[in-house]
Amino acid sequence: MLHMAEPLIHHRSPEFRAVMERVNANLGYLFQTASPVLTLTCSGTGGVEATFVSLFSPGDTVIALNGGKFGERWLHMARVFGLDAVEIRTPWGKAVDAGGVEEALRAHPGARGVYLTHSETSTGTALDIRELARVIRENSDALVCVDGISSVGALELRCDEWGVDVCVTGSQKGLMIPPGLAFIALGERAARAVGRSETPKFYFDLGRALRSRESADTPWTPAVSLLLGADASLAMIREEGIENVWSRHERLAKGLRAGIKALGLTLFSDSPSNAVTAVHLPAGIGWKEFNGALKSGSGLTLAGGQGEYEGKIFRIAHLGYFDELDMIIVVAALERALAACGFGFGRGEGVRAAQKFFLE
Amino acid sequence: MLHMAEPLIHHRSPEFRAVMERVNANLGYLFQTASPVLTLTCSGTGGVEATFVSLFSPGDTVIALNGGKFGERWLHMARVFGLDAVEIRTPWGKAVDAGGVEEALRAHPGARGVYLTHSETSTGTALDIRELARVIRENSDALVCVDGISSVGALELRCDEWGVDVCVTGSQKGLMIPPGLAFIALGERAARAVGRSETPKFYFDLGRALRSRESADTPWTPAVSLLLGADASLAMIREEGIENVWSRHERLAKGLRAGIKALGLTLFSDSPSNAVTAVHLPAGIGWKEFNGALKSGSGLTLAGGQGEYEGKIFRIAHLGYFDELDMIIVVAALERALAACGFGFGRGEGVRAAQKFFLE
Repeated sequence: MLHMAEPLIHHRSPEFRAVMERVNANLGYLFQTASPVLTLTCSGTGGVEATFVSLFSPGDTVIALNGGKFGERWLHMARVFGLDAVEIRTPWGKAVDAGGVEEALRAHPGARGVYLTHSETSTGTALDIRELARVIRENSDALVCVDGISSVGALELRCDEWGVDVCVTGSQKGLMIPPGLAFIALGERAARAVGRSETPKFYFDLGRALRSRESADTPWTPAVSLLLGADASLAMIREEGIENVWSRHERLAKGLRAGIKALGLTLFSDSPSNAVTAVHLPAGIGWKEFNGALKSGSGLTLAGGQGEYEGKIFRIAHLGYFDELDMIIVVAALERALAACGFGFGRGEGVRAAQKFFLE
Repeated sequence: MLHMAEPLIHHRSPEFRAVMERVNANLGYLFQTASPVLTLTCSGTGGVEATFVSLFSPGDTVIALNGGKFGERWLHMARVFGLDAVEIRTPWGKAVDAGGVEEALRAHPGARGVYLTHSETSTGTALDIRELARVIRENSDALVCVDGISSVGALELRCDEWGVDVCVTGSQKGLMIPPGLAFIALGERAARAVGRSETPKFYFDLGRALRSRESADTPWTPAVSLLLGADASLAMIREEGIENVWSRHERLAKGLRAGIKALGLTLFSDSPSNAVTAVHLPAGIGWKEFNGALKSGSGLTLAGGQGEYEGKIFRIAHLGYFDELDMIIVVAALERALAACGFGFGRGEGVRAAQKFFLE
């Protein structure tokens, strides 16, 4: 009877320490880094906050790319904690190029960090982190800080090889478990920055988390059940092989895009992410009508647009446990909804194109 | 197949909104308040941090009772965020009396808040929150802020009736689900203080959480699976009746104490908590030896002492899903371990005394 009142494993037990040791090792594999990856109990937003308050001090300059809802959030967050946040604004759906970042670094040579959202969920846009990290490293001492919340475990990312200093993700995206955990890869240069930071912090103090990690512990009681889930999920990723996970996501995204284009629809982003696909709603079809037809006709729930693109685009997430048949189902459901809304397209052309891509 | 890649319920779906509405209503019942109770995804420590950064501004004076490891943590945390934190220090195992609080309020008439740890887990000591809240309200405008992390759902607590302005708890204690959520009851005076606070904050901004709550939402992605657990657990508490939950904990604690005293052991606290019982280790018995005997003889894991009481006391948690037979088992296990360590006591006297208490 006693066990019912306790979590299955107490977070200070040897059993849980063994889980944390495995999770820590497999997180290094996931992020492709030999440096520590820290676990916090919070959402991805909390994870990004931990990097701002732990790596920088009020008055420090950081550059943040703002090309969507999440880039905008990090910019605002940096300012809340007293950082001088310089914005590189790109239109939604466009990826910033290396030239834009180089220019910002020249204008702000003292910048301590550059924040990049690898896969911007609000627009379905991916950045070329390898190239951007190279440019940042070559032109400055700024830390390369990647919001990998919806990219880690989906898009190729090699922290050590590419020179990414900081990368944050959440448990509910590429790791496929419920939300409630954030994971933060912290390279050597970032760990040194933690020692210099003067921003007030307690719960989100990554210095404390680094010290606790030495004994496979966390500073505060962690979300034990979610960590058990992460342990299982990371083992699956390790078994599939991270390169295979990345190429599966690439293949699924490409097949889906082929199906969408064959229906006469157009992608929203000019640098589409392999984790989420944003599509323009055809002229004359309202989001409410389309979404209702998706739900009633196929039981499928997609995300609409955000901000100024509300009602103008829709978004399909395809990161985590997806396979090729899932993509065929999505395209089939889109066809059913478009037909119900009276949109003209070659019936079956979408699923044919997706299937053709997968079989060739 | 698609459903595997998503949490069972998406956090912005109507289904999840219905869960949040039920959770919000039942949290009001749990805390005995008509004011909002907010849900954050973090540990209890994160919940307390949210109150410091959301209710006060740098330079504000707060009074914090420090009679154990947790009181000490809040005092330190308040200082990190620039508050002028006045300490009322009590020896571990002693409860502060109303006179001590009245004196501190006289010495610091501008204090904006008083922090009280209802059940101090490190010492097994409970405070008389009803009396302390009355004294604080009568002598000042300071907010009555209660760390109820290990008391809510175990010890009697009536936020509105007693004048408690703020109360924080965690998911893994009285609510009996895994850790990862914090719940914060915020009375009217506290909600007004949120509007005045100038401390930088983002993830832990209770003002944002209050606004999101109006549409049964949370500002950031919440730990969905834990909230489904909280929904079920709160329904159980409501069905048992909160007064019955409190009196069950009182009864279990009293029976356990009767058993312990019958073995010739002495309680550590002079104001013992109904959530956790701290006991002096008998002279001549080492913690390692005793703990090993408990584990090997009965498979029972108890907590040792912390700080200067490491190796000197042990602690038995009894909050959540416990019943009278659980207490008999604990006393029986203690007897087996004490016998294995060569301690002299009347064999069977502990279980007899506990059983006698429960049956009379």
